Amino acid sequence: MKVMVRADVLTNNNIAADFNRELFQKTKTLVINLMSSPGAGKTTLLEETVRALSGKYRIAVIEGDLATERDADRIRAMGAKAVQINTHGGCHLDARMVAACVGEFDLEEIDLLFIENVGNLVCPSGYDLGQNHKVAVLSVPEGNDKIPKYPQMFMRTELVLLNKTDLLPYLDFNVDEAVRDLSEINPQSKLIPLSAKTNEGLQDWFSWIKEAYRQCVQQ
Amino acid sequence: MKVMVRADVLTNNNIAADFNRELFQKTKTLVINLMSSPGAGKTTLLEETVRALSGKYRIAVIEGDLATERDADRIRAMGAKAVQINTHGGCHLDARMVAACVGEFDLEEIDLLFIENVGNLVCPSGYDLGQNHKVAVLSVPEGNDKIPKYPQMFMRTELVLLNKTDLLPYLDFNVDEAVRDLSEINPQSKLIPLSAKTNEGLQDWFSWIKEAYRQCVQQ
Repeated sequence: MKVMVRADVLTNNNIAADFNRELFQKTKTLVINLMSSPGAGKTTLLEETVRALSGKYRIAVIEGDLATERDADRIRAMGAKAVQINTHGGCHLDARMVAACVGEFDLEEIDLLFIENVGNLVCPSGYDLGQNHKVAVLSVPEGNDKIPKYPQMFMRTELVLLNKTDLLPYLDFNVDEAVRDLSEINPQSKLIPLSAKTNEGLQDWFSWIKEAYRQCVQQ
Repeated sequence: MKVMVRADVLTNNNIAADFNRELFQKTKTLVINLMSSPGAGKTTLLEETVRALSGKYRIAVIEGDLATERDADRIRAMGAKAVQINTHGGCHLDARMVAACVGEFDLEEIDLLFIENVGNLVCPSGYDLGQNHKVAVLSVPEGNDKIPKYPQMFMRTELVLLNKTDLLPYLDFNVDEAVRDLSEINPQSKLIPLSAKTNEGLQDWFSWIKEAYRQCVQQ
């Protein structure tokens, strides 16, 4: 019973994800599903990304949270379009939630769409939203053991942004160990160390976006 | 359909939780369900708690993680009994998982049983494990907005341990604001600021445990 219900939920999700994917491809919109623990710094990273790239790309953001409009307000304050989804206790975004709100954007006028998922290192990784890329944010204060202890997230993402490197002097985090652990769990994945606070390393993230956008519009 | 399945899951969970609760009451074992985001410092806090209190209480720990035996190994290295539950992708512990492993302890010989839940600020709070107390750990690097953005967790817990206060000088975290936000969401809850790394504030946590244990054995 339990397995069948789960399978049914995922089938319905995948239908909506395929609908989203087709729409995003048609409008040449690069869509990135950003996932992490609560407080890893996704919104601050998006604020800095909007600040740096909004002259070059037309950017929009879908914000997923259990409650409050805070994150969408932060993105709007940076001058980008943002829609807030409140899950009212739900632990992840699903493709239907995304499908239900993309109508609020004119996707023909959007180059980059970031979907900031609910802060949760477990559940969001299991749900295809129709995105081009799944990216995980891990932050230095969370510690080195998160990659082996939450393997599903790191197996299902193709890039890890290691945020809050400005705190490395105060904490026992070993970046080389994180790179090694990631390569064991997912040899295709890449890790970019950065600090959304000091802007260290952000250029590598922006270069990654530039290349992903180039591939997206060539398809 | 969706609601009925969820109701069914919770009914089954509650039957197991009542079974656990009766067992814990009979053996006068104080059981604390510890929940937080990944990397908030639950295991380090438990290591320090075992170090400080194992002369006074007989302590055991149930560790919940998606993968690895790492946390149970850390607790055993401190000299306490520990059992590791691996959820293999599951986002929370439920009462049946706990019921299935309490047989590995002789509860008559245990005063304090800590259950370290899967690192997840959303799903674990919805599952009664039969514990005496639900305690949330929030860490300074996660930021002030977590209490309003994850209200279910803070509504369903009676104590918040604000960990990693040693990082306050390097981050924009306002402890007074956290206390205010918590009192709005849950006026009965209490917040204890502490650092499991420097041991600042740990005595307040130990005093809370002492009082909770006193009440537990008097019942």
